[in-house]
Amino acid sequence: MLNILFAGNPTLWPNYEPALKTAFADAGLEFELSDSCDDPAIVDYIVFSPAGPIKDFSPFVRTKAVLNLWAGVESVVGNKTLTQPLTRMVDPGLREGMVEWVTGHVLRHHLGMDVHIHGQDGVWREGKVPPLARDRCVGILGLGELGAASGQALAGLNFDVAGWSRSQKSIEGIKCFSGEEGLRDVMARSEILVLLLPLTPETTNVLNSETLALMPKGTVIINPGRGPMIDDAALLNALNNGQISHATLDVFRVEPLPVDDPYWAHPNVTVTPHIAAETRVTSSARMVAENVRRAEANEPLMNVVDRSAGY
Amino acid sequence: MLNILFAGNPTLWPNYEPALKTAFADAGLEFELSDSCDDPAIVDYIVFSPAGPIKDFSPFVRTKAVLNLWAGVESVVGNKTLTQPLTRMVDPGLREGMVEWVTGHVLRHHLGMDVHIHGQDGVWREGKVPPLARDRCVGILGLGELGAASGQALAGLNFDVAGWSRSQKSIEGIKCFSGEEGLRDVMARSEILVLLLPLTPETTNVLNSETLALMPKGTVIINPGRGPMIDDAALLNALNNGQISHATLDVFRVEPLPVDDPYWAHPNVTVTPHIAAETRVTSSARMVAENVRRAEANEPLMNVVDRSAGY
Repeated sequence: MLNILFAGNPTLWPNYEPALKTAFADAGLEFELSDSCDDPAIVDYIVFSPAGPIKDFSPFVRTKAVLNLWAGVESVVGNKTLTQPLTRMVDPGLREGMVEWVTGHVLRHHLGMDVHIHGQDGVWREGKVPPLARDRCVGILGLGELGAASGQALAGLNFDVAGWSRSQKSIEGIKCFSGEEGLRDVMARSEILVLLLPLTPETTNVLNSETLALMPKGTVIINPGRGPMIDDAALLNALNNGQISHATLDVFRVEPLPVDDPYWAHPNVTVTPHIAAETRVTSSARMVAENVRRAEANEPLMNVVDRSAGY
Repeated sequence: MLNILFAGNPTLWPNYEPALKTAFADAGLEFELSDSCDDPAIVDYIVFSPAGPIKDFSPFVRTKAVLNLWAGVESVVGNKTLTQPLTRMVDPGLREGMVEWVTGHVLRHHLGMDVHIHGQDGVWREGKVPPLARDRCVGILGLGELGAASGQALAGLNFDVAGWSRSQKSIEGIKCFSGEEGLRDVMARSEILVLLLPLTPETTNVLNSETLALMPKGTVIINPGRGPMIDDAALLNALNNGQISHATLDVFRVEPLPVDDPYWAHPNVTVTPHIAAETRVTSSARMVAENVRRAEANEPLMNVVDRSAGY
């Protein structure tokens, strides 16, 4: 019987308690899960978040691992009392949710759905048959875990996918570009462009008046990455002159996006409220349970934090 | 020299004439292609659509096959004068387009996109995080070429896909059901239900007040198949009482859908103008030519209609 202590932010407990119990049971573990403990010396595992109650890990003499619920560990990695292995969350649910959001919005624009979603007025709008996905160029800026997975899902639906990353990569199904010139090449061919770069000084304002002008007239921009990658004034200008036909934006320099922001009122912009990728209780509980199962089976833990690197 | 008669809707001729000529030539055939004929007795093959001029096939005494340009044959299969082999169109472009349309609209409803597409009013609507695709049950009624391909694309995006066909099938990634009871089982588990059955007397009104009541409350209906599969009064009633949360309908008993049809005005219905699957001229012309080539080489025709089954 394992004693597992939930030492996360107490507001998380009502959602995580049932999810963790299900996940531990599904992993075949015998366990007692509690959000409090009278005797730290009997705790086998700690499910942790920095906003939770534990600041001193030294009384947890039997604890085999501390399982952080979030990806970021910057506020705990320097804690000198923490001598047990520390893992960080890599939630497959967050990746899967991002792939679903990106694929859905690419298909929405590819198929021209909005004309029909808005046009329920009795007019039978046959319009132009869209090209098949195999004849539609989609670009993905950023080929990290989220960009690569999104690009591969789109390639699986036959889209002609090109991707860009700072250093050259090789990913099945994606035409991979890198470097300054590669960035211009991807932009110049993309009818739909998805932004999934990490935010750094180099990627800030990567979409600006100069780069927007490189794209084919009528390109669609989809930004589920980070708001500051876009020079907002330049994008609004490109939307107004038709160089960009639509922008679906999930992230912004200021969130929630202020009510008077011109994006809200623009007819060719869709604002979504930072929902493209969310950590999921169910899938992150499964990751925690899988790590406990591994520890009990003397298998290596996943996503162990390297204390010297800090992540 | 083969005499081939184009007996489709005359508006199709300008697009199909060059595509068919190219395809017949590429198939190595010697032919004369025309959109009119003075002497039915010399016609070897008929390229057909129900909206074209032929209602009586009996004068075409030498005709070796009637090659329908569309997948649906319900309006010609019962024609007693038609004694020649009848083939229906299985166009790879049509299949790909259908998969894209179905996948796009399933993702649209799965993600709850419409709230944001309609809600560009300055309100930051975070709302409820949708489940991941792996926790979303999608049902496909009909596992012919279009249903199977759509189901497999959805399974590739992790959706929990169940499919129903009259006779039991086995398709990778899809939980396959058949028979009366299987139909009820698929309906009872589907949060999103896609109709891709062939239209036959048995599938007419397959969605009726009784079967709609089997589904989980709030199910979404997507119909890219055939209009008469739905009892429209029963669906409107189910939409009004919330049993069905939304219907995206591409096909109707009468098309174009009349301007005063209640579907247009219903806030939870999206009408699309029979665009889910468009036959692509180039790829379908190639299929027609391949069947003529086969017939001339005494090879079995592809996609021959079984008159007793009706498709």
